[in-house]
Amino acid sequence: MPQVDQALEYVRANREDFINRYLEFLAIPSISTLPENRDDVRRNAEWLAGQLDGIGAARAEVFDTPGHPVVYAERLDAAGKPTLLVYGHYDVQPVDPLDEWESDPFKPERRGDNVYARGASDMKGSMMAVIMAAEAFARQGEMPVNLKFLFEGEEEVGSPNLADFIRNHRELLKADAVLNCDGSITGPDQPSITYSLRGLAYFELEVRGPRQDLHSGVFGGSIANPAAVLCELVAGMHDENGRVTLPGFYDSVRPLDEEERSALARLPVTDEKWLSMTGAPALYGEDGYTTLERLGARPTLEINGLVSGFTGEGAKTVLPARAVAKISMRLVADQDYTAIHGQFRAYLEANAPDTVTWELRELTGGPGAIMARDSAAMKAAVAALRETFGAEPIFRREGGSVPVVGHMQHELDMDSVLLGFGLPDDNIHGPNEKQHLPTLLKGVETYVRLLAHLGG
Amino acid sequence: MPQVDQALEYVRANREDFINRYLEFLAIPSISTLPENRDDVRRNAEWLAGQLDGIGAARAEVFDTPGHPVVYAERLDAAGKPTLLVYGHYDVQPVDPLDEWESDPFKPERRGDNVYARGASDMKGSMMAVIMAAEAFARQGEMPVNLKFLFEGEEEVGSPNLADFIRNHRELLKADAVLNCDGSITGPDQPSITYSLRGLAYFELEVRGPRQDLHSGVFGGSIANPAAVLCELVAGMHDENGRVTLPGFYDSVRPLDEEERSALARLPVTDEKWLSMTGAPALYGEDGYTTLERLGARPTLEINGLVSGFTGEGAKTVLPARAVAKISMRLVADQDYTAIHGQFRAYLEANAPDTVTWELRELTGGPGAIMARDSAAMKAAVAALRETFGAEPIFRREGGSVPVVGHMQHELDMDSVLLGFGLPDDNIHGPNEKQHLPTLLKGVETYVRLLAHLGG
Repeated sequence: MPQVDQALEYVRANREDFINRYLEFLAIPSISTLPENRDDVRRNAEWLAGQLDGIGAARAEVFDTPGHPVVYAERLDAAGKPTLLVYGHYDVQPVDPLDEWESDPFKPERRGDNVYARGASDMKGSMMAVIMAAEAFARQGEMPVNLKFLFEGEEEVGSPNLADFIRNHRELLKADAVLNCDGSITGPDQPSITYSLRGLAYFELEVRGPRQDLHSGVFGGSIANPAAVLCELVAGMHDENGRVTLPGFYDSVRPLDEEERSALARLPVTDEKWLSMTGAPALYGEDGYTTLERLGARPTLEINGLVSGFTGEGAKTVLPARAVAKISMRLVADQDYTAIHGQFRAYLEANAPDTVTWELRELTGGPGAIMARDSAAMKAAVAALRETFGAEPIFRREGGSVPVVGHMQHELDMDSVLLGFGLPDDNIHGPNEKQHLPTLLKGVETYVRLLAHLGG
Repeated sequence: MPQVDQALEYVRANREDFINRYLEFLAIPSISTLPENRDDVRRNAEWLAGQLDGIGAARAEVFDTPGHPVVYAERLDAAGKPTLLVYGHYDVQPVDPLDEWESDPFKPERRGDNVYARGASDMKGSMMAVIMAAEAFARQGEMPVNLKFLFEGEEEVGSPNLADFIRNHRELLKADAVLNCDGSITGPDQPSITYSLRGLAYFELEVRGPRQDLHSGVFGGSIANPAAVLCELVAGMHDENGRVTLPGFYDSVRPLDEEERSALARLPVTDEKWLSMTGAPALYGEDGYTTLERLGARPTLEINGLVSGFTGEGAKTVLPARAVAKISMRLVADQDYTAIHGQFRAYLEANAPDTVTWELRELTGGPGAIMARDSAAMKAAVAALRETFGAEPIFRREGGSVPVVGHMQHELDMDSVLLGFGLPDDNIHGPNEKQHLPTLLKGVETYVRLLAHLGG
């Protein structure tokens, strides 16, 4: 495949240009959840449309949605070749706690082999890599496959407008396969492909007591403390075996079969490595399952945030009027994410005392997904990884959620290949997010080979 | 007593001037816990020294401490008369949540009979009232008693430097009695005197898990969530009967005797009134005790604040690295506030799982106090209240803590009369703190009569 060799040659020759454009991408604070970054998100969408123009796209367009824009582009001149829909999201998570960052999250900094910035790994790196791979072919003139790009700006807030966008643009988005670049591989020398994702149900629970904050000495001991009640409710959400207590939570969970358990047991992820990666003093989880089983095949409930009363420095003797927790569940096959709200409500109705009032707000959610391991796109990805890394890729279940994979299955009946080039220790969603540059450059080469294999 | 009549006449004639100086006092944001208000606190101390000059004090001085200044003044020209040490604090609580205030906490606003501002009730109102009472005599020439004033700027942060100041100025502060103006009465038509205060022990508990915030999908379910562990620890601090579970917590609590229980039962504070004052959906507390018993005679443990992970708007799927709770105990006789730290630590050692680490920091604390009800100063206060309000004052136990009362007992062997003119619904420490002006004006008159009675 001389075309591939030329494309790879182009990638190597333009390495610094690629990195510079990546750094430019990272400098745009496209935080989708914060109203004050609204204009930055749009600016990022327009910047991306410009990058897609550069690969000779016949069409690169910024679509408005009720939320942040969707960027769509296509180049469909590979007659007789399959069409690949490339998915990515250009929005990023918030950056707090800001004081734990060693460099400004939006002034990308190269330290050693890594680039540190919010979005470096999740997922501006893999997006720039796939754009670079397409450009590498575009500069040779001939494309190995037809390409469509769908880049959204709301993934980090649960993609509230994406399902509608897909539903309203079925023809536009129609393709033979989806390449979803939002992911990571197991290690810099160990390629992997994720074939299973967990679903998500995310809530905010507010417990209210007195009309307003009161003096804890004058009133404490005579009325319920909403912060204490919230803690009791949260504490009751797990039993002593680490199992979630919401009524019916496990009813439709698909049990792990022996074949999958032994496949998971062969993965090169040890408990020691996991522990040192997190820095936690010990592992913890549902009784009767290994760490990898807990992460990929079992549902979980996590507290994402707590706030109540006085949180500044020093002492303030207040009895808080309210207490709020952010609580989310990761779901596995065959749990229905829309059923969790009712289970959560049933738990609260059974357990909340009448000394407080409470409100449960569903903030976002999405289905999990399991992808076929033998599709043409999956085979092309496996071959590309093998050639680039010189190692056999492993198939992996992942603990995270990528709701768009479920939407693509539901709305367009298309399976996704989930392949991105983050690493597990990239601190995504946390301070000091980073991307390993050598892995990202291998990512560009992998995408080049994937396109070539898919084109036959 | 023509001298009293003239003093009362002066108070009535200068009512608006008094209110204006009070509003000026309230406009100074003397928040002792916030470093950014440090200069404001000092400015307030100097402003106060100026007010004390105005009553013909031979000496009005601002003393530096390692923290905020102490203001001292004296007027000792009432030969042969007793000496009264007047205590107050000119610092105030923080104002958050600011968005729940209906007017700027430091732009005092008169609405109806009330003045709304931080510090209006706790305790700039009563301080201005006692200064006005002294001034009313000073303008007639002759003082009924000798007066010393001790105004501190750190009460709201637990008076960390006051015990040392008292110890180092024993001679200066020596007096026959202490009038502590930091308090409230039961109702605008029901005068009362507090004779019992609870002690305080205030802590910050931090639970730590992973090195930094992690992605809750990638890592959730494999390591302990510090927010969830904190909630479990907090939930375990009370049993199902509303009793605190710290080992040894009740060992030295003095039981309520029948005489005190029936005295408390006669107080005109109904559960219905208490409920409507707080706005809570129901009352709550330790089994086997009435609301007033829970407030005045039983120790309590309250959660004053909680914070962990993502607390902004929307959804962020983070597994927090740490979770912090502010937790304080109100103590009754004969509990030793210095023993609580060890009890708390023992609870945590027994109950915290080894999947997290924790740190317990003692922020502040102080002893409780029970005051004699038959001292000369107490009798003068009772007579002054009876004459001013036309009603018999009641003796009350109070849930709050005024550590200086304990310090005065320990260091100077002086009992305090605790008499201030807040009301129970003044929202002290909360948003929309207010002071009922007619009650405050009666307070000025009460202080005038108290000084006269004490001088005989």
